[in-house]
Amino acid sequence: MIELMMTLDSHSGRHLYEQIYDYMKSEIRKGHLLFGERLPSTRFLAEYLQVSRSTVDLAYGQLLSEGYIESRPYKGFFVCQMEELYDLQNTMEQTTADGEEEPMQFRYDFSPNVVELSSFPFGTWKKITKETLIDDRKELFALGHPQGDGELRTTICHYLHTSRGVNCTPEQIVIGAGNDYLLLLLEKILGRERKIALENPTYKRAYRIFQSFAWQVGTVPMDTYGMCVDALYESGADLAYVMPSHQFPTGIVMPIGRRLELLKWAAGEPGRYLIEDDYDSEFRYRGKPIPSLQASDQADQVIYMGTFSKAIAPAIRISYMVLPRRLLERYREQCLFFSSTVSRIDQSILNVFIRDGAFERHLNKMRKIYKSRHDVLLSSCRSLLKRVTISGENGGLHLILHYHGEQTEKELIRRAAEKGIRVYGMADSHIGRLPDDWQPTLILGYAGLCEDEIETGIRLLSDCI
Amino acid sequence: MIELMMTLDSHSGRHLYEQIYDYMKSEIRKGHLLFGERLPSTRFLAEYLQVSRSTVDLAYGQLLSEGYIESRPYKGFFVCQMEELYDLQNTMEQTTADGEEEPMQFRYDFSPNVVELSSFPFGTWKKITKETLIDDRKELFALGHPQGDGELRTTICHYLHTSRGVNCTPEQIVIGAGNDYLLLLLEKILGRERKIALENPTYKRAYRIFQSFAWQVGTVPMDTYGMCVDALYESGADLAYVMPSHQFPTGIVMPIGRRLELLKWAAGEPGRYLIEDDYDSEFRYRGKPIPSLQASDQADQVIYMGTFSKAIAPAIRISYMVLPRRLLERYREQCLFFSSTVSRIDQSILNVFIRDGAFERHLNKMRKIYKSRHDVLLSSCRSLLKRVTISGENGGLHLILHYHGEQTEKELIRRAAEKGIRVYGMADSHIGRLPDDWQPTLILGYAGLCEDEIETGIRLLSDCI
Repeated sequence: MIELMMTLDSHSGRHLYEQIYDYMKSEIRKGHLLFGERLPSTRFLAEYLQVSRSTVDLAYGQLLSEGYIESRPYKGFFVCQMEELYDLQNTMEQTTADGEEEPMQFRYDFSPNVVELSSFPFGTWKKITKETLIDDRKELFALGHPQGDGELRTTICHYLHTSRGVNCTPEQIVIGAGNDYLLLLLEKILGRERKIALENPTYKRAYRIFQSFAWQVGTVPMDTYGMCVDALYESGADLAYVMPSHQFPTGIVMPIGRRLELLKWAAGEPGRYLIEDDYDSEFRYRGKPIPSLQASDQADQVIYMGTFSKAIAPAIRISYMVLPRRLLERYREQCLFFSSTVSRIDQSILNVFIRDGAFERHLNKMRKIYKSRHDVLLSSCRSLLKRVTISGENGGLHLILHYHGEQTEKELIRRAAEKGIRVYGMADSHIGRLPDDWQPTLILGYAGLCEDEIETGIRLLSDCI
Repeated sequence: MIELMMTLDSHSGRHLYEQIYDYMKSEIRKGHLLFGERLPSTRFLAEYLQVSRSTVDLAYGQLLSEGYIESRPYKGFFVCQMEELYDLQNTMEQTTADGEEEPMQFRYDFSPNVVELSSFPFGTWKKITKETLIDDRKELFALGHPQGDGELRTTICHYLHTSRGVNCTPEQIVIGAGNDYLLLLLEKILGRERKIALENPTYKRAYRIFQSFAWQVGTVPMDTYGMCVDALYESGADLAYVMPSHQFPTGIVMPIGRRLELLKWAAGEPGRYLIEDDYDSEFRYRGKPIPSLQASDQADQVIYMGTFSKAIAPAIRISYMVLPRRLLERYREQCLFFSSTVSRIDQSILNVFIRDGAFERHLNKMRKIYKSRHDVLLSSCRSLLKRVTISGENGGLHLILHYHGEQTEKELIRRAAEKGIRVYGMADSHIGRLPDDWQPTLILGYAGLCEDEIETGIRLLSDCI
């Protein structure tokens, strides 16, 4: 039985039946009364409110006729399914995190922020989930270590070492529910008096997160090797946020020379750190995987961050960071009271998924799928598009199209949209005023499109370019 | 003697004590019963209404604990002073904040921060998990709405409304991986130029989290009704963090008069907000659950926070906050880029768990278990311990022992530890220097001990006191 908190006001000037009607309608519209819930009987409600039954009948009749409730013979009155309510929510779901423009229908969306989910090994995940829960391991329901479970940290440590050359121990790893949370935690670890420099253009989401911090936030220009180190020195920053394996959005892979310069910068003052966001390094199509920047760090100055969002699935809210030992001390002393944000059940499932090889198999499968899409995109662009050059094509899940024609970036995007093609402009990733000589540049993600879609999409795009 | 026009309806489906409570409350709220008026004695009223005295006792107990009336020894019950008559709405239940203590070997640990996990409905949870994964619903693996999935928010909204009287729509709810994360997000929503006041003593973990913010953090003393409002005004704070349903650690239930004063304080300046941490309000043993402070908020000034850590299991990293509409706008504009921290699979499981009644059944079961432990602890303390008084015993998962002997709090804790008993001192929850006249006070949590353990533990404790 639903709980009522209705009071009638006999002096309000509104009929009592209207007050009952208003109350019920508002409860349904607000979602306080849910689809399928039974309303109190008219007799009960009349007694409860000390009004006549005909008053309640009137109110219910009105709700019936407006479709808020339905009557089931011999059972009573029930709340109807409300399209309107759900519509309201659906619209909300579509407002993307970045507050993008209203949703349009695109036939081919070259978003760099999606992954292919059809190939996700649901069967394996289900099996591991079932096995994880089978033993009634009640410790899984207790609060775990704030840094994450030791087993999972050991597994991640091993994975990072073999796949990315990261040098660390499980003690240095902090597991959290997504990169955004880990960055919030990092703010607390690093303290308020900080100045951070980002590459420009950069991952806008990280920029916004840093802007919400008590830190000063600035950008440093890039050349073809990545962040310009001279400008970094000049910036006065003591933190630099970089993506050396495959910079977003430019796709630049930072060469070892520039990496060493950055490490030297960091070594120049005691409190300096590099934040390495290794967001999509699992995917590389030419040559050997490039080790992380952290792998070259000899002086305990790189904070390494990674996530399973791209490699497994965005809803697996598990990211990790590797803290330099000096920061680990600070974290242990000052921030260990922040509870873990990942359920132990999820940690346990992921641990088995990686440990037993399912993750490696999944990655190999996805590499094949993505490489095929990557190759089709690359060859389609090369054969179909005029006046463009391509960069950033050696890894990751997107590539970059530099346009050398008459149109502006905005015009290109608009004309593509008219054909049902969604492409993304690099200007959106640029911080501050665009330079006058800005070269129109498009970001083409291909993880969410199959080969045919990619080819057709590029064919349509060629009409606009 | 006041005039009564109360009639009871034994067929209404509402307990008789609730009808008495409702009538009295409504008379007070309407101003028919004025400040200082004496209520009929329980004996008189019982005879007059032809009900048992315990029925009237229950009703008066509820009015007492909500602060509508007060008891004066040898004189009777009197109507309390109320700041203003806000339109309070009513209901039943609640939520947490959590903490971990370093594991030490004690035979009997009266920790206030554990919950009983053996009674967790693993079977149901497993079944729902299996059903959730069975359909290969790949959208569950995509990134969801930053505030959490619409369905779960609707379910929580409904639950909060019926159980805690919280007035909100699903749009106002933000779901996050634990209270700590939600507080971090709240810092970003409320901005840096803030001064927050906490009750003293308070939940130390929240205090530490606020200290890590860019905010000024201060404390305000408490009297027997909760946070002292005069001192709050003097503090210059524009945020106040309170636990009105069952303050940690004191166990004080804030009466309605004090609640209204706090709401008036918040209404005094545009940017003021109350943060209500409703951490363990699911568990109440005497009378009806007390509605949340948010339920009395007419001016969009209460940020309501709750968690499933205590009511389900600490590892279920799902908490929620209800944002006032004005803050919701700010959040939407400035913080929506922070991704959700809870996996959609977990959200979906929890949604079904609540929606299909398993949560309610689990809560009912746990209430029985905890009430039995609570009753054993209370009677053991009363019969076995000398020189103590007890408070905070009406709800939650701990009670407070005030010691009136020669030993200090530290001595008591140390002597108990020698017997293998872990008890917790209230001094640990006190911020700043202890007053010279500090009264030794112990916090006894009972959620993690069975009845025999509680009794044996208190028996052993009696040797130390």
